[in-house]
Amino acid sequence: MYKFNAEHATEACIKWIQKFFEENGKGCNAVLGISGGKDSSVVAALLVKALGKDRVIGVLMPNGDQADISYSYEICEILGIKHFVVNIKEAFDGAIKAISASQELTNQAIINLAPRIRMSVLYAVSQCNNGRVANTCNLSEDWVGYSTRYGDSVGDFAPTSCFTVEEIKLIAAYLGIPEKFYNKVPSDGLCGKTDEDNLGFTYQCLDDYIRRGIIPEPKIKERIDYLHRINLFKLSYMPVFEYKGEEENE
Amino acid sequence: MYKFNAEHATEACIKWIQKFFEENGKGCNAVLGISGGKDSSVVAALLVKALGKDRVIGVLMPNGDQADISYSYEICEILGIKHFVVNIKEAFDGAIKAISASQELTNQAIINLAPRIRMSVLYAVSQCNNGRVANTCNLSEDWVGYSTRYGDSVGDFAPTSCFTVEEIKLIAAYLGIPEKFYNKVPSDGLCGKTDEDNLGFTYQCLDDYIRRGIIPEPKIKERIDYLHRINLFKLSYMPVFEYKGEEENE
Repeated sequence: MYKFNAEHATEACIKWIQKFFEENGKGCNAVLGISGGKDSSVVAALLVKALGKDRVIGVLMPNGDQADISYSYEICEILGIKHFVVNIKEAFDGAIKAISASQELTNQAIINLAPRIRMSVLYAVSQCNNGRVANTCNLSEDWVGYSTRYGDSVGDFAPTSCFTVEEIKLIAAYLGIPEKFYNKVPSDGLCGKTDEDNLGFTYQCLDDYIRRGIIPEPKIKERIDYLHRINLFKLSYMPVFEYKGEEENE
Repeated sequence: MYKFNAEHATEACIKWIQKFFEENGKGCNAVLGISGGKDSSVVAALLVKALGKDRVIGVLMPNGDQADISYSYEICEILGIKHFVVNIKEAFDGAIKAISASQELTNQAIINLAPRIRMSVLYAVSQCNNGRVANTCNLSEDWVGYSTRYGDSVGDFAPTSCFTVEEIKLIAAYLGIPEKFYNKVPSDGLCGKTDEDNLGFTYQCLDDYIRRGIIPEPKIKERIDYLHRINLFKLSYMPVFEYKGEEENE
């Protein structure tokens, strides 16, 4: 039967982060985007435990005005981490304007542009601060591909992509993160809808399916399985042609 | 002994591209950035052979003025492919300005920002045109990590990353691409230096080492081996923490 020990999982994850930095950036800083939501709050707290607060840098990247940005400032304050604010509006608007000159942008293209501009900014900040970029995706989102390829789906290391939304919340509680950061309704802040509106099912339903084998009603099950299948490519390196010479490539 | 059959390699690559689209985007268009250099010219020509010219879209992405942009227009013309021009200057400048508000940008961060903004643009164009983004890296560059992570190093599929610079030129010749596109001195157009200035050795020297086992002088060998080692991470998916439960993660 499924059970989850938040303490054990958290400590194992912290050790893994320490090992990653030992092997891939001794003395480097961890850099991550801070949205004020549960995922970035949990990853930031894990990084602080693993590396100490002086080696964690949060980057707030509103696109113009962000209604709930006070959460982002507050979590940085609580964790005692250094943070930068980089408003992506000019870069975002500049890209939209340049692309619109030759074609009509679809709504989905506009939605996915912001996370890609944020990734570009995050890597620039990381390069200027001897950094390694932390990915903040969780397993539930990754399961159904609820992320932008080469936007928020990437990073230099992924500490929490093996934990469901439910588990992320348990880790948040274990780490002493105030509840308002992980019990608000998750939304990507991109299109005005909640994540669960966009997906068509709740994270609880998804997590029960993934972890407890509880089969949702047929239409939902079908949708989850479909999203899982068509989004798997986001979780691996792109396909590469391998030329093996004249004999082998017949 | 090393030998390379350009005809065989080209035909095998074309078949692989067809198979990729058959399996990952039946009827989709191929979208790629066109720089006017050998790599994007060869990939564009391979895509035209594989899919037909009506399914290939080139995207020209100058950053302000690009001195040699006539090459980019000309190769699109020669291949008969549709193309868009998206000047990234406003997006690029907007990002620089926003980041500079809180910190000093290093030269390297500025250099790598442009390819990341281009990737963001390319994916937006791809999303608006039922596209799949072609990576245009070659093996010689990948060998020493001469690419920007999540910038020009990514895509949805990589048709030419198994071919050295020397082999790319032989494929270009086999495909009938005019010599001026593949025999000019390669430069990233980012910092005013040629690729070979930046690297500290010639592609010929690198390719001889990779393909013919010809060992360069000790300092060069050391530099190639060093660059290869520290850049390998760019060629795989980021490390991911995998939690296996209480027993296994001791």
